[in-house]
Amino acid sequence: MPSEPESHLSADFRAALLQLFPGDQCHVDLPTRHVYGYDNSRRLQLPDAVLIPREQGHLPDLVRLCRQYGVAIVPRGRGTNTTGATIPIQGGVVLSFERLNRIIEINPDDRLAVVEPGVLNGDLQSALKPHGLFWAPDPTSAPFATIGGNLACNAGGPRAVKYGACRDNVLGLGAIDGHGRALRLGTRTTKGATGYDLMRLLIGAEGTLGLITDATLKLLPLPKASALLRALYADVETAAEAVTRIMRGNVVPSALEFMDATAIRLARDIGGAAISESGAMLMIECDGEPESVPWQLARLQEAASGRGLLELVQADTASATDALWKARKALSPALRTLAPKKINEDVVVPVSCLPTLVRATEQWSASAGFPIVCFGHAGNGNLHVNLLIDPANARHAEAARSVLAELFKTVIALGGTLSGEHGIGLDKRDFVPSAFNAATLEMMYDLKQWLDPDGIMNPGKLLPPADARRRRAD
Amino acid sequence: MPSEPESHLSADFRAALLQLFPGDQCHVDLPTRHVYGYDNSRRLQLPDAVLIPREQGHLPDLVRLCRQYGVAIVPRGRGTNTTGATIPIQGGVVLSFERLNRIIEINPDDRLAVVEPGVLNGDLQSALKPHGLFWAPDPTSAPFATIGGNLACNAGGPRAVKYGACRDNVLGLGAIDGHGRALRLGTRTTKGATGYDLMRLLIGAEGTLGLITDATLKLLPLPKASALLRALYADVETAAEAVTRIMRGNVVPSALEFMDATAIRLARDIGGAAISESGAMLMIECDGEPESVPWQLARLQEAASGRGLLELVQADTASATDALWKARKALSPALRTLAPKKINEDVVVPVSCLPTLVRATEQWSASAGFPIVCFGHAGNGNLHVNLLIDPANARHAEAARSVLAELFKTVIALGGTLSGEHGIGLDKRDFVPSAFNAATLEMMYDLKQWLDPDGIMNPGKLLPPADARRRRAD
Repeated sequence: MPSEPESHLSADFRAALLQLFPGDQCHVDLPTRHVYGYDNSRRLQLPDAVLIPREQGHLPDLVRLCRQYGVAIVPRGRGTNTTGATIPIQGGVVLSFERLNRIIEINPDDRLAVVEPGVLNGDLQSALKPHGLFWAPDPTSAPFATIGGNLACNAGGPRAVKYGACRDNVLGLGAIDGHGRALRLGTRTTKGATGYDLMRLLIGAEGTLGLITDATLKLLPLPKASALLRALYADVETAAEAVTRIMRGNVVPSALEFMDATAIRLARDIGGAAISESGAMLMIECDGEPESVPWQLARLQEAASGRGLLELVQADTASATDALWKARKALSPALRTLAPKKINEDVVVPVSCLPTLVRATEQWSASAGFPIVCFGHAGNGNLHVNLLIDPANARHAEAARSVLAELFKTVIALGGTLSGEHGIGLDKRDFVPSAFNAATLEMMYDLKQWLDPDGIMNPGKLLPPADARRRRAD
Repeated sequence: MPSEPESHLSADFRAALLQLFPGDQCHVDLPTRHVYGYDNSRRLQLPDAVLIPREQGHLPDLVRLCRQYGVAIVPRGRGTNTTGATIPIQGGVVLSFERLNRIIEINPDDRLAVVEPGVLNGDLQSALKPHGLFWAPDPTSAPFATIGGNLACNAGGPRAVKYGACRDNVLGLGAIDGHGRALRLGTRTTKGATGYDLMRLLIGAEGTLGLITDATLKLLPLPKASALLRALYADVETAAEAVTRIMRGNVVPSALEFMDATAIRLARDIGGAAISESGAMLMIECDGEPESVPWQLARLQEAASGRGLLELVQADTASATDALWKARKALSPALRTLAPKKINEDVVVPVSCLPTLVRATEQWSASAGFPIVCFGHAGNGNLHVNLLIDPANARHAEAARSVLAELFKTVIALGGTLSGEHGIGLDKRDFVPSAFNAATLEMMYDLKQWLDPDGIMNPGKLLPPADARRRRAD
């Protein structure tokens, strides 16, 4: 809900902003501020102005101007994040990169592409395909999510299990920090041991340390063939055991997705996949040169077999494969049909701890009295844990808080972490202190202070506000 | 040459040091100080004391003590680095990790190992082998280089082309920064989007930001089969073209090594490999499951074929393969037999720029009047450029300076960087400012100041001293 329709920007600031970004690049009208005040977290908070630049040139000036006037800058791709990372909670300027969307270079010889942050992940993949190349990160939102947003959240996706997430697939970045300094980080080479690795600080920082202005992406050869197995298990525990067996083997699957019984029902009833009732399912994919697929499949079939296996079939046509993936990708929106509200976490644990985590969620669901649906990228130990609640039910809300606290505590105790690929944003920031020791947490606050001394870069995200922290310490 | 045999440490400091590290953990005698005053750069400078701790517990106290007294700490593995990174140029305390060499955990289910920094790379690989696992970085010095040293320099090696260097193969670190804070960075999971990536700051930092006290390493399944091709070319240019063709293809080789004509002669005459005279050679390796090797080989053979190819043979026995690799690994020491001094650089350029770089080195050699021998990890564009000079020859020394300046200028202009895997140390630090824009360089100095405010962590390495920088700016 918009807290305040009026803009808080001074006339001087607005004039300076318009001078830097004239014409249709700068908007202070209420409708536009509404459109850019929400994201996929379904929160809404009005910014005071919306910038949609056509050119990069004045971005350092923008940062310096905002420093001078103490105005927040909230960088934004297409707002597909689920954590509130792009909500302008302090108002200020939302900076949309949607028009800075040029693919500057595709270089097949050096296997790299240089892009502006507003390029859609899906558009880049389409442009790379004729060259026989791809960029590894493939979040479900790829067709309508930007590369800049992917980098800000260190996005992953199903194939991260074989090919890595964003941090593993970037060579270089152009960036502007909270001082307004135009940085050039990383290289155009696949190897480098010159100076400090500052580049990866910006990846996964959710825009809290600076703006990413261009990215040199590491590309991979597009596999010419792939195959998909569907394995049904009696229960979540035996499926989780199979994940551990698969990940111990010599064939790294290009996807290893897990669904519990409720997720299977949804995939069938809403996603349209022909899957029989069972306790849990794995989707196991391999890819590579055509010659490699048969023996990869054989190895994966062997590893998938064991206690609790009910059915193991290969999706033997392209349309059967597509149908399974479509059903998988429909899960997240489909969950919204089951309950008035879903709370979606994307915790990660070491793969061997998946059975423990899955068992725990079943217990929490039973005692809380609402369904908890689990699916996700099991090969990385990355589980999407969905609490399906009715926010009007006071007991649900209370129990959800306690389940979340238990969930994060359990994940940390198992050697895991709060987020695998969605990031922290607003939703999880208050749990971040539980994920690090005091010295490491202090170092994170120091880092923020160092690169953004005035606290103007996407304030209030990723870490609890420093004053709240001081209050706790008192 | 030792500049000064006497220790400069105050009696108070020495007493405090002995209290923290009693018995044979602390040495101030001249012979021990000599042994720990040099490294593989062949420089020597005496430390004032040598610490060889048996326990980790007092390392934060050590940092705080050194801060209090303004004494430098130079962390050290086995001193195999070639850049002077472990020379105690300001004296102080050399901290050897050789006794902190426990493999704390090998976890095949989660594909990770936790080690202390003093574990030798080769010892870890031996311990992993029975589990069917390996850790990717494989510098030539692996049998006698420590994991801590590998991490400090972001070491690579031949198989980095397929499996990455250190930064790509670490999950978590324990570290102590220059404030004496005990940090816990990264995770035990293969995916993570919680907070800032501070871990990779320490990797490749050459001990200038803090001490690495333990590392959680990402392990990979040991390939069950491999095959090696030897390809001879008429000249370096056609060999470099073949590298580009291979790296454009869908089969990523597990090694792609380049040798020029002089390196070939050395490999034959000193390394004992049976190779006929030619302009340049590639060693092309693939690995994986046994079923995958034949078609990988076929693809690589196809890509290796083209203009200038003289001979393409498979090393068809294990002993032929070993002989080739032995000859390759003998190159670096063998070069020392050709001239009184070698200046060994390990520049990197985008793979497509290798022909340009190789051509340039030939011209520089012709005009400088001394041999320049090139070999290295061509698949990453990482070339070891060896200037073979007689330091007694004043014209050589002068020409070498000018060749180095040209080399670095060319590499930067081609979009490459100063070091691929050896790091900066003392040898290249004065060239570092040429590799970054002013804002990025300033950020590196800021980073050093932030994590090591008293400048006690391996001072004088990786960046030119800040006062020299200020002088230049005046």
